[in-house]
Amino acid sequence: MTGSLRIVGIGPGLADWITPEASMMLADATDLVGYAPYLDRCPARAGQRRHASDNRQELDRARAALRLAEAGRHVAVVSGGDPGVFAMAAAVFEAIDRGEPAWHAIDVRVSPGISAMQAAAARLGAPLGHDFCAISLSDNLKPWALVEKRLIAAAEADFVMALYNPASKTRRDQIGAAFALLRRLKAGATPVMFAKAIGRADEHVIVSTLADADPECVDMATLVIVGSSETKVISRGAGTPFVYTPRSAARGP
Amino acid sequence: MTGSLRIVGIGPGLADWITPEASMMLADATDLVGYAPYLDRCPARAGQRRHASDNRQELDRARAALRLAEAGRHVAVVSGGDPGVFAMAAAVFEAIDRGEPAWHAIDVRVSPGISAMQAAAARLGAPLGHDFCAISLSDNLKPWALVEKRLIAAAEADFVMALYNPASKTRRDQIGAAFALLRRLKAGATPVMFAKAIGRADEHVIVSTLADADPECVDMATLVIVGSSETKVISRGAGTPFVYTPRSAARGP
Repeated sequence: MTGSLRIVGIGPGLADWITPEASMMLADATDLVGYAPYLDRCPARAGQRRHASDNRQELDRARAALRLAEAGRHVAVVSGGDPGVFAMAAAVFEAIDRGEPAWHAIDVRVSPGISAMQAAAARLGAPLGHDFCAISLSDNLKPWALVEKRLIAAAEADFVMALYNPASKTRRDQIGAAFALLRRLKAGATPVMFAKAIGRADEHVIVSTLADADPECVDMATLVIVGSSETKVISRGAGTPFVYTPRSAARGP
Repeated sequence: MTGSLRIVGIGPGLADWITPEASMMLADATDLVGYAPYLDRCPARAGQRRHASDNRQELDRARAALRLAEAGRHVAVVSGGDPGVFAMAAAVFEAIDRGEPAWHAIDVRVSPGISAMQAAAARLGAPLGHDFCAISLSDNLKPWALVEKRLIAAAEADFVMALYNPASKTRRDQIGAAFALLRRLKAGATPVMFAKAIGRADEHVIVSTLADADPECVDMATLVIVGSSETKVISRGAGTPFVYTPRSAARGP
């Protein structure tokens, strides 16, 4: 009995951003494993089993999926966004690495998806148009000192920054601390963008500056983008401005 | 006569990675504008005009697209990968910013796509599973000193690195210079991955180390990923190993 495991990215909320590959992998699975709101976004299929969990315990969820595949099931681990970007793929491979030797032989494939930063960028214009970095502000799994070190490096080398996990239900201080740190290193006029619930009916973007950026704009569904010294804002009357980072850079910060 | 402009990402080569939104935008366009090999990947549609160009002159191509939209056409600018990541979106918004005032009022939307680093990561496992940066090694549009500064910052802050444009038809020295620089700052055992032509029939990945990484493995269709100090390789007998970066980081570099 040979099972399989697919790690499938369903993007940030809009059904039209789910790739055909992801849709096929979801349809082919005997079992879907994932955070309940992501499973709710997968089309129903008769006979398919669903194993919903909360949004923590990623390693336990990965192990449960691997055990199902080992037992011969065709399992899709459903991930929001791109499973390879702050999502389930790393948890599955960590579980394989630390788990049963037999798990190394399981047929595992990853299907990429649209990540939150790409959806946010698309709505704003092209803020990630040149060198950028992606940093998770969660200090659940790494020391805050390492987050600070990466923010400082990114500021000093003038990367655009996509800040993932700027807040959680229980955690709201990090984004304020990040803005305070960045204000010491970057111009107050640097564009800062809040992209909320992109791809959902209540999606919303705010274009601000580092000097004015309000940590209260952030919730669990927010992605924050901090511009480089080259990032530009194109105002459009009453409409949301466009934001882009040119492909060329004349200089450093 | 009100035209529109869509900037559409068709991913790195696999038709099953083109999102339904992108497919609809391509189908709805009266005019497709883009690099010829990308246009060749778009399904034929009767009556649709195609404006193919070479892979340089991005700003000229953007201006041509804006002029068509201004004249009432429904234009799709076709971009490989994600148009927001080292691709056409930044060129279009730069053209708007520097161009005719009337262009600010054109109905412009971006449709995100799977970028090369995501496709490469999916084939490898989850090498971008934690904080990472994306750097273009092309020095056509920025000084090489800025590339070096960003590589040094990324090494010192222990980001995983996705290196875009590691070579062109006329340019092969940068990736060798980047490896030489990184060898002074990072362990020789750091995983280095070459992902070639991912999503195409001849796709191919190579898992190496920084000490052994051969610049000759690189061509125009290659994306290079350099691991962090936490990036791990899971060997699988004769198969290509999996590579992942854990979600947790105990320490800095």
